[in-house]
Amino acid sequence: MTKYCFGIDIGGTSIKCGLFDIYGDIIDKWEITTRTEHNGVHILPDAANTIKDKMKKKNIKAEDILGVGIGIPGPVNQAGEISCAVNLHWGYVHVVEELEALTGLTVKAGNDANMAALGEMYKGGAAGCHNVVLVTLGTGVGGGIIVQGQMITGTHGAGGEIGHIHVDDNEEEKCNCGGQGCLEQSTSATGIVRLAKKALSKSTKDSLLRGSEISAKLVFDGVKENDELAIEIVEQFGEYLGKALSMISCVVDPQVYVIGGGVSKAGPVLIHYIQKYYQKYAFPACRDTIFSLAELGNDAGIYGGAKLILE
Amino acid sequence: MTKYCFGIDIGGTSIKCGLFDIYGDIIDKWEITTRTEHNGVHILPDAANTIKDKMKKKNIKAEDILGVGIGIPGPVNQAGEISCAVNLHWGYVHVVEELEALTGLTVKAGNDANMAALGEMYKGGAAGCHNVVLVTLGTGVGGGIIVQGQMITGTHGAGGEIGHIHVDDNEEEKCNCGGQGCLEQSTSATGIVRLAKKALSKSTKDSLLRGSEISAKLVFDGVKENDELAIEIVEQFGEYLGKALSMISCVVDPQVYVIGGGVSKAGPVLIHYIQKYYQKYAFPACRDTIFSLAELGNDAGIYGGAKLILE
Repeated sequence: MTKYCFGIDIGGTSIKCGLFDIYGDIIDKWEITTRTEHNGVHILPDAANTIKDKMKKKNIKAEDILGVGIGIPGPVNQAGEISCAVNLHWGYVHVVEELEALTGLTVKAGNDANMAALGEMYKGGAAGCHNVVLVTLGTGVGGGIIVQGQMITGTHGAGGEIGHIHVDDNEEEKCNCGGQGCLEQSTSATGIVRLAKKALSKSTKDSLLRGSEISAKLVFDGVKENDELAIEIVEQFGEYLGKALSMISCVVDPQVYVIGGGVSKAGPVLIHYIQKYYQKYAFPACRDTIFSLAELGNDAGIYGGAKLILE
Repeated sequence: MTKYCFGIDIGGTSIKCGLFDIYGDIIDKWEITTRTEHNGVHILPDAANTIKDKMKKKNIKAEDILGVGIGIPGPVNQAGEISCAVNLHWGYVHVVEELEALTGLTVKAGNDANMAALGEMYKGGAAGCHNVVLVTLGTGVGGGIIVQGQMITGTHGAGGEIGHIHVDDNEEEKCNCGGQGCLEQSTSATGIVRLAKKALSKSTKDSLLRGSEISAKLVFDGVKENDELAIEIVEQFGEYLGKALSMISCVVDPQVYVIGGGVSKAGPVLIHYIQKYYQKYAFPACRDTIFSLAELGNDAGIYGGAKLILE
């Protein structure tokens, strides 16, 4: 009898869903809207319904589903509980218990960044590796840490919260987490825009960046055009991020850093500037750690969900 | 038939040895000198001989020994090989293969700091925990990282090399590793002496530290006597170390930090100053991570060796 599993990735705007075979090959994928109103009370029932609909349409029985692997944007503990997921408007939710009750299927849950790392290790930019750190450069900076093939969840669900590593004693603004000088304040997409605005106001240099609405993409496009100011900004970005990754290597010493998220669309130039400063600060034994770009894009989470069930 | 195992901890000056029962209770412990001459070629044969002597004296047969767990001061990979152990005058050594050939027993090897962490988790300051970081404050700063009960070795054997986390952009002297601004330059026993000498030369304040030979012990004794300058030094020490541990929590999010090594003899006052700054920099979810003092002292490594075999 053919067996299947589902990979589900809950995001702030959409719920990404995948139906997989036991080899982790994708059979079908689709998205539904995340309804965050009323403290996100509809989110898990909506996920359960879309799973049940798909099973009905494909004529798949419950006993042929090995399970559902689900990623949540927040700290998920090993039991599958979450204390708070800001973007879903959730307080405490027992994700595993609730989704198992709604579907009658086995459920495993993890943090979305960890799930994406698992996906990239399974079928993406770190395929074949067992010690992987995924760095997601998007609106914020997320991390997913895999050691010897296992996700690091952490005692408080904060394993891989690398966006909140303190990297700047001179930062004056607060981070969303309440801290000051967090990595994500200078290396997320919005962080790069902040660096750019500071650089533009401090310098009188001519630059392609002047007169346009600044975005991380514009800055990296500038680097590709050899724009001097854009290069200065990306050097700063690379120094913050490369230094932080050198610290992570002193803790878990991964084989590969996979760089994903919207900012990673900048391509190999991004790796160049991160790796340059990583090597400057890295402990000698870790200097040749591999850097690669994420390959699965928005599908990393659903692949990770499948892997969580199929491992 | 009663079964046994050995825990062996190779240090730069002595080889610590323990014979354990299967409950991890110690039956006998002893030390021999580490002979580092001739590139440390005698070290493993000496360890093998002391094991065989003990078996003979106690009338224990090889088939009743479950194995030998051995800790080495350097980066040991998962196969049990080491590329270099400076304090033993070793280059590449395949520790597991060599000691198995010499003893005819099953051998497992790990980095000494990781083994000590395993020991503290097994029978010491982190007993009952599964996510543990041991911070060893001695001549250098070492780290042992246990996640979900497993040691983190790292791809290049550098897992837990937390003494080389970069914490100071303004450091002018080089670290032994070749880097600059490493944690161990300011928070090891020698690092504390450096901080103290700088503080004494910069300040004209009266202090108990003046006119004596500075040691980490003297500085902490000064704190206990409310010496203002000693307190300033320990505040600096606490800020460097607390900040670095807050970074580690963003990666592996342990349940407990166990503080060991010679400096930890300062006692609870040490925890006070580390925890104060840890909480200042920590990601909110991790602010209540527990801090405790190591309990096994120099025996942590041999307990860890036993645990490696008995797990």
